[in-house]
Amino acid sequence: MESSQDLIIPRGFRAAAVKSGIKPSGGLDLALLAADGPCAAAGTFTTNRVCAAPVRWCRDHLPADDIRAVVINAGNANAATGAQGAANVARTAQVAGYFLACRPGQILVASTGVIGHQLPMDRLEEGLSQVSNQLSADESSFQTAAQAILTTDTRAKVVSLQHQGESGTFTLFGMAKGAAMIGPRMATMLAFLLTDAPVWPNDLQPILSEAVENSFNCISVEGHTSTNDTVLILSSTAATEPVLRGDDLTAFAALVRSACEALARMMAADGEGSTHFITIDVEGCETREEARSIARAVADSPLVKTAIHGADPNWGRIVSAAGYAGVPFAEEELSLWINGVAVYQAGVPTDFHAPALAATLRANRDVDLRLLLSRGDARIRFWTCDLTAEYVRLNADYTT
Amino acid sequence: MESSQDLIIPRGFRAAAVKSGIKPSGGLDLALLAADGPCAAAGTFTTNRVCAAPVRWCRDHLPADDIRAVVINAGNANAATGAQGAANVARTAQVAGYFLACRPGQILVASTGVIGHQLPMDRLEEGLSQVSNQLSADESSFQTAAQAILTTDTRAKVVSLQHQGESGTFTLFGMAKGAAMIGPRMATMLAFLLTDAPVWPNDLQPILSEAVENSFNCISVEGHTSTNDTVLILSSTAATEPVLRGDDLTAFAALVRSACEALARMMAADGEGSTHFITIDVEGCETREEARSIARAVADSPLVKTAIHGADPNWGRIVSAAGYAGVPFAEEELSLWINGVAVYQAGVPTDFHAPALAATLRANRDVDLRLLLSRGDARIRFWTCDLTAEYVRLNADYTT
Repeated sequence: MESSQDLIIPRGFRAAAVKSGIKPSGGLDLALLAADGPCAAAGTFTTNRVCAAPVRWCRDHLPADDIRAVVINAGNANAATGAQGAANVARTAQVAGYFLACRPGQILVASTGVIGHQLPMDRLEEGLSQVSNQLSADESSFQTAAQAILTTDTRAKVVSLQHQGESGTFTLFGMAKGAAMIGPRMATMLAFLLTDAPVWPNDLQPILSEAVENSFNCISVEGHTSTNDTVLILSSTAATEPVLRGDDLTAFAALVRSACEALARMMAADGEGSTHFITIDVEGCETREEARSIARAVADSPLVKTAIHGADPNWGRIVSAAGYAGVPFAEEELSLWINGVAVYQAGVPTDFHAPALAATLRANRDVDLRLLLSRGDARIRFWTCDLTAEYVRLNADYTT
Repeated sequence: MESSQDLIIPRGFRAAAVKSGIKPSGGLDLALLAADGPCAAAGTFTTNRVCAAPVRWCRDHLPADDIRAVVINAGNANAATGAQGAANVARTAQVAGYFLACRPGQILVASTGVIGHQLPMDRLEEGLSQVSNQLSADESSFQTAAQAILTTDTRAKVVSLQHQGESGTFTLFGMAKGAAMIGPRMATMLAFLLTDAPVWPNDLQPILSEAVENSFNCISVEGHTSTNDTVLILSSTAATEPVLRGDDLTAFAALVRSACEALARMMAADGEGSTHFITIDVEGCETREEARSIARAVADSPLVKTAIHGADPNWGRIVSAAGYAGVPFAEEELSLWINGVAVYQAGVPTDFHAPALAATLRANRDVDLRLLLSRGDARIRFWTCDLTAEYVRLNADYTT
């Protein structure tokens, strides 16, 4: 059902994007997702104590049942910008509301880019004037919007899913950005989900939170939790159609989870400079949080990530990362497989054939790590990427 | 009083090192530090749940008042090696005890190198035979021993300090290794402190623990806590001379702290592939642990480390790393200086001259970050290094 070639756009939404001049490169940097009527909406946000002005704005206005649009700019995070930053978000909502004939409080805002610089409001306001005149329900408009929210991403990240339920067919479209400053508990990532399934905010919020917990909170590029992380979901029909219940609501929740997981995997796979996409399964823990702690320690270890980059089956780095995750296991409880090859079983190294395993690491972009403990039934699946010299090069010279 | 040119060696110790063939390179890889009589001894060790066999051995035998020697090998960590690994440590102590005419329980053992391979015991035993015949109290023997324990370090790390107290003059010699897999709560690091100050184990242990807390636990290269971290301290005279009390004991504790701090700074400065040595002062916290959490988050952020490598005053990465450290501060409580330049004051960016600050980052190896909060009086000083493409290159191909 997933397709990024032929996107299906839910009823009731239009999109557009322009080059407003916020990005020094002069590329697309301002996207507008607009609804034809008031939407039910919910969101989840960064846990960083230093959080961006648009994050505060969205938190203050959600959940809601009258959202009309989302303004997204790339190139400037509007984070760590003090009172001026907050004023600039309010002004953005005011100007967008003027062009869309709604109140500022019906406009959500998200930003991504460099931290600590004030937004160039003259260019942004001019951009809002242009972008609000180009709104279209065409698939290509949504593709362009998905391009406009990227920063160091190498490709756009979109997904569309459809479900035929008892109460009719509904569609979910999602787009996201994120390739670094990706930490657990959200990332430098933005994701926007639009649906024509009629779901109220009080159903949307728990469905979104649960999906985020199992998708965007299960990826890490370098463990740096951003100031701007935002996931928003809007339903265009909640105000006008009978809301989903029962099996249809369950099916909708599964659709949201699938879309979030697909977008999260795209982010980890697009990790800056990466050459390997790594799936980490941690099983046999007492609690899911134990499993998450171990997965995160492995995913964030530069020594693990560089070893995989070098196609080096240096499994000691993986078990030692698990060992400092704060989970009080005994060595004898731990086993590890790399690409299906058992390398460490119940605390003892196996005599696996290292050159053959190294060859599979060299030949394949996808790497599977499985850590099995004997403490319980809890498990998690986590995604990350390797660490390369190209990551260092990209990040050693980003603002200047 | 510190000097690495003319090392002063405490009375009662001899050292030697040989090439035993454990390192594939064929370099020095086996060091022996031996005492003329029984020593008081204490140690601190890794907190990793996957800990090396020699760490378990030392934990089982310390604190003690009859230690005679420390055997240290580089090139093989003897970690994640199961029951065979434990048997190999016991055998190492037995063989060393045979050559030094003491019980196995009087021999401490430390290892560093690749994880998950069994020690080549034939070569190690032959090496012990040779190294125990070459023991000497000459300064040059200790310099050679300090070379033999290195792995990816670019230089040996030694310190010697002397204090003239009421009860006479005493000397402290320290040597260490460590350049990566350096995480807080100890590192892939080994440090050995020898003294002729008469201090009992029950005084040595708290003095050592306190010194480690403020030195080796305040550095990070990439946050990966090793399986093998070991700090040992031996006193050669505790059995034969009146033990230190009062001011002399306080002076001795200060000496241990100074030596540990000097060695810890040498490790951070020798971080693999690094081009900058970074000192992070976090002040104005409610507790020292709060300050440590923030310092550690900043020190471990690849985005902070790559920005400094690129001489890029991208301070947003620093304040956002502080923001995800788990300390519940408000943005308005946070200020940041880079190399003495105020870049963020009470939650608001300043209009500092970025090109001038970038120039200081380019011109100097040393970088000072100061984060000031307004929550209390607790503070910490933490040391780390930048992240470079050379670090990735070094770690992408270590075992194979």
